[in-house]
Amino acid sequence: MFKEMTVQTEVRTQLVLIDSEVRGAIQESGIEEGLCVLWVPHTTAALTINENADPDVVRDILHETGKIIPFEDGYHHMEGNSAAHIKSSLFGPSLTLIICGGRPVLGTWQSIYFCEFDGPRRRRLLMKVLEG
Amino acid sequence: MFKEMTVQTEVRTQLVLIDSEVRGAIQESGIEEGLCVLWVPHTTAALTINENADPDVVRDILHETGKIIPFEDGYHHMEGNSAAHIKSSLFGPSLTLIICGGRPVLGTWQSIYFCEFDGPRRRRLLMKVLEG
Amino acid sequence: MFKEMTVQTEVRTQLVLIDSEVRGAIQESGIEEGLCVLWVPHTTAALTINENADPDVVRDILHETGKIIPFEDGYHHMEGNSAAHIKSSLFGPSLTLIICGGRPVLGTWQSIYFCEFDGPRRRRLLMKVLEG
Repeated sequence: MFKEMTVQTEVRTQLVLIDSEVRGAIQESGIEEGLCVLWVPHTTAALTINENADPDVVRDILHETGKIIPFEDGYHHMEGNSAAHIKSSLFGPSLTLIICGGRPVLGTWQSIYFCEFDGPRRRRLLMKVLEG
Repeated sequence: MFKEMTVQTEVRTQLVLIDSEVRGAIQESGIEEGLCVLWVPHTTAALTINENADPDVVRDILHETGKIIPFEDGYHHMEGNSAAHIKSSLFGPSLTLIICGGRPVLGTWQSIYFCEFDGPRRRRLLMKVLEG
Repeated sequence: MFKEMTVQTEVRTQLVLIDSEVRGAIQESGIEEGLCVLWVPHTTAALTINENADPDVVRDILHETGKIIPFEDGYHHMEGNSAAHIKSSLFGPSLTLIICGGRPVLGTWQSIYFCEFDGPRRRRLLMKVLEG
């Protein structure tokens, strides 16, 4: 099953929780055992897995990576979003989830996040669910 | 085949070699051609591929990423392990290995490492082997 | 289908566009729906997705990651390429592309890059195309 969904982001950098969208699409596919590949078709966004219990974890991830890769740092790219391109490559555009019993296998504290690094924008998220 | 194993870490940050565990599980599956997806169900650990010949490579990876993402840096998350959460997102929780002839395809110098960023702990490692 | 190709790099750090090689190999496999796993069997190289429209994006990615992970920084590994090993782990050695209608699903601005962090060298790139 191949599926496309949209994610509306609200600010310049943001981690948007997409657990329920991913779980829903896997359930919809009817596939019990296999893989789910998530793909962000953008070069200033990414996907990641991290904690959802304390919102300060997400705050610290965004704040610290913003210190490591500043918005302004003598970049040559004229659009002003080089930091977002660099973060996109470091976080990565894709995740491959294991499906077991019709659900993605995640740890107790793991949630799936769409990473916006150059928002706010209306973004696309692609999913492939594969049996096996 | 879906399998779970455990990895006991000994110190705060550590790369634990898991080549033989992964090779063993692939062999056990009997699958000759396909994929092997490794997944760490934790948000302060990760997986990576790097050199196993000179132990100083692992030392440099841990030391340098510790300089880039310090243990203390004005984080808001009260548990004191924000650096580990950030490293987990940058290294990534998963690897997808190609299986060829019943073995994972790795380069001469490549080894598979479980990355501990907030140890010591008893950790879980999940594996899915898929034919295709 | 499992395939190996080579990538010749020209300088110390470089992003080499490999879109046409990947598209060609997928077409050659005859597989219309599935996954394509790319794997770099080296520990001082990687793979990434980013923009191909403005060459300054690639320049900024290489320049900024060179500032974050300097070539010289008191590393212990005697070969002088620890920065390349660290970048390899942060960018990652692999990508899993979704195949739809015989083509890799990429966004308008996305291209596939082989990342050289310790060139120039003759490098290998491995590909597995899987139906599903």
